[in-house]
Amino acid sequence: MTIEAAGAGALLAILRHGEALTRTELMQLTGLARSTVSQRLDALLDHRWIMPAGDAISSGGRPAVAFTFNAGARVVLAADLGATHARLAVTDLATQVLAERSQDMAITEGPERVLEWLVQEFESLLRESGHTLSDICGVGIGLPGPVEHSTGQPVNPPIMPGWDGFDVPGWLEPRLGAPVLVDNDVNIMALGEHWAVSPEIGHMLFVKVGTGIGCGIITEHRLHRGAQGAAGDIGHVQVTTAPERVCRCGNIGCLEAVAGGAAIAEQLRAAGQDTADSRDAVALVRSGNPAAIQMIRQAGRDIGEVLASLVNFFNPGAIVIGGDLSDAGEHLLAGVRELIYSRSLPLATQHLTVRVRQLGDRAGVIGASVMVLEHVLSPTAVDRSVAGA
Amino acid sequence: MTIEAAGAGALLAILRHGEALTRTELMQLTGLARSTVSQRLDALLDHRWIMPAGDAISSGGRPAVAFTFNAGARVVLAADLGATHARLAVTDLATQVLAERSQDMAITEGPERVLEWLVQEFESLLRESGHTLSDICGVGIGLPGPVEHSTGQPVNPPIMPGWDGFDVPGWLEPRLGAPVLVDNDVNIMALGEHWAVSPEIGHMLFVKVGTGIGCGIITEHRLHRGAQGAAGDIGHVQVTTAPERVCRCGNIGCLEAVAGGAAIAEQLRAAGQDTADSRDAVALVRSGNPAAIQMIRQAGRDIGEVLASLVNFFNPGAIVIGGDLSDAGEHLLAGVRELIYSRSLPLATQHLTVRVRQLGDRAGVIGASVMVLEHVLSPTAVDRSVAGA
Repeated sequence: MTIEAAGAGALLAILRHGEALTRTELMQLTGLARSTVSQRLDALLDHRWIMPAGDAISSGGRPAVAFTFNAGARVVLAADLGATHARLAVTDLATQVLAERSQDMAITEGPERVLEWLVQEFESLLRESGHTLSDICGVGIGLPGPVEHSTGQPVNPPIMPGWDGFDVPGWLEPRLGAPVLVDNDVNIMALGEHWAVSPEIGHMLFVKVGTGIGCGIITEHRLHRGAQGAAGDIGHVQVTTAPERVCRCGNIGCLEAVAGGAAIAEQLRAAGQDTADSRDAVALVRSGNPAAIQMIRQAGRDIGEVLASLVNFFNPGAIVIGGDLSDAGEHLLAGVRELIYSRSLPLATQHLTVRVRQLGDRAGVIGASVMVLEHVLSPTAVDRSVAGA
Repeated sequence: MTIEAAGAGALLAILRHGEALTRTELMQLTGLARSTVSQRLDALLDHRWIMPAGDAISSGGRPAVAFTFNAGARVVLAADLGATHARLAVTDLATQVLAERSQDMAITEGPERVLEWLVQEFESLLRESGHTLSDICGVGIGLPGPVEHSTGQPVNPPIMPGWDGFDVPGWLEPRLGAPVLVDNDVNIMALGEHWAVSPEIGHMLFVKVGTGIGCGIITEHRLHRGAQGAAGDIGHVQVTTAPERVCRCGNIGCLEAVAGGAAIAEQLRAAGQDTADSRDAVALVRSGNPAAIQMIRQAGRDIGEVLASLVNFFNPGAIVIGGDLSDAGEHLLAGVRELIYSRSLPLATQHLTVRVRQLGDRAGVIGASVMVLEHVLSPTAVDRSVAGA
């Protein structure tokens, strides 16, 4: 264990999360000597992590220069890979999207073909945004299955043949020349919605209702991944609606087998509708089809049944519903709220917000960018990058 | 926000959690200058937070003195107040119990009478341990209901008439002359079992099965209290066993109404047994009564049904079952395990430990002591105490 005095990275963290500050203000804030502050600011300026703010502040004497975080210093590559679809983006260091695209892609083609394709798309997207590989400070990737975050390797992912244990960072880093961080797609969506929409909420649940159902957990403003990185797998919690229905996991009565997008599309097909997937189900709801509306409302109740327990257990400040089915809007949300408010304890629901995602399909890429920024802009990492030059 | 260099408190944290170290070893570990380390060690020695370790270490030249945390520098007062029973202790700064007692007490007598009694008991216990009020560095109290930890005030506690919103620290601090920290009893039991038995586990659930049922949540080695401090209230999660049974909360089918100690005692009475409370039920189980064994096993399954969902959601490394009913031993635990292993995902149960409490009735007072120590021995608090002298 090494304990270091407030270094350049700590100064950068202050400027990154706040407004522009002068040398004197930074001295007052940190208790550091003027010479120390100057030395650290010089190092950060050298590396372009900060820049002088637009207007110098004068208080009578020589005008004092204020410094601000330089969000344009580098860029981040972000990818949200689903089962059949991918969204890619180049962002700046404040998660602003500089270029993006959304394309069909089959995760079942295996890691090498998918990642080969990903590198080409990233290179083309970088050109589009006016950048090159030398500008990137990191790469963030979300995958549709369990991932061991510390190694970036998928762990027994059910819908990703060939990916089990594949070293994604080990394969990508030499090709892209920057650190690669990987997590499951629900976790990065939770990060994105938390960072961009609800940064003031300490404890938040993000529920993705797509083909399957999963949950990203924010506790004290950080992702809770659990002992094996498996936290948030609420799709296989048993609900009371259809206790006999067999789930793809082999168990019966799982939430996903009742309220997931695939289950709803199947139930609608059984009712004579031409629904291939969750998007078709949402389209039916939006067209006003009563059977579809009834089903989506019941799916909301089923999800709400599980969330009601989690509200008592976890006491979150906000629950955000995302995934394809969240586009069905109030019908799903109404069912979720109905069960939460009827089953959870008053103290825990008193100030609880239950809302649908606000970033739409972008939550994943923005969260992937946040994951990278929290890593490469951590005080320790910045101290190391500044010292290494 | 103030960022300070590694102060005396940081040095104390190193010595408190590790072995005795010399001045030179501390310099190497922290990167601080010799003069700075010496100055801080002197301040810690002055306040008796540290002391020279038994044997000086010689490497040829002048023998170097190693310093170690002085767990005997002060004492902590700890109380675990239940509905009808209290356990009190005086501990040293390493949570070793120096004196303790266990007594009947009715929480329903209201805060002033209970706390008046508590002060007298603490004073008598201090004398017994050979200490006085001037030796205490803090007081930790667990209460049998929801508590807003930041203010130490009970929040709508169902079985504590007169306590709602009562300022426990405000009443006790002038009388005891030290900071008073308050939390609910399940949280302090979780802290105690984590600190003393499973400190290596990052994410742990402690389930108290007494008259009622509650859960203490450890995430990244710290208590998770949730947005309103209401986290862990699993007693009112709905289970499938008796969906029509009315709970004291007004809802139906709650876990506590089915598997809590009061519910089991009542069911045994209905079956012709003379059981007043959960302890009587445990005695029946231990005497080999088949009806009681069957009921406790089913209670384990009901609790396991709720925990199976939480294992998927939270992915803990360990689950500890405590409270009176945990004394029924393997019968309860077997039911809990049965449901967890049949309903949770393999990835999440692969390395999961499910055990009964090891500290017995002492978990609460040891946890209350831990709560105080984490507060008064935090680096910031130590820096302040050392600077204030």
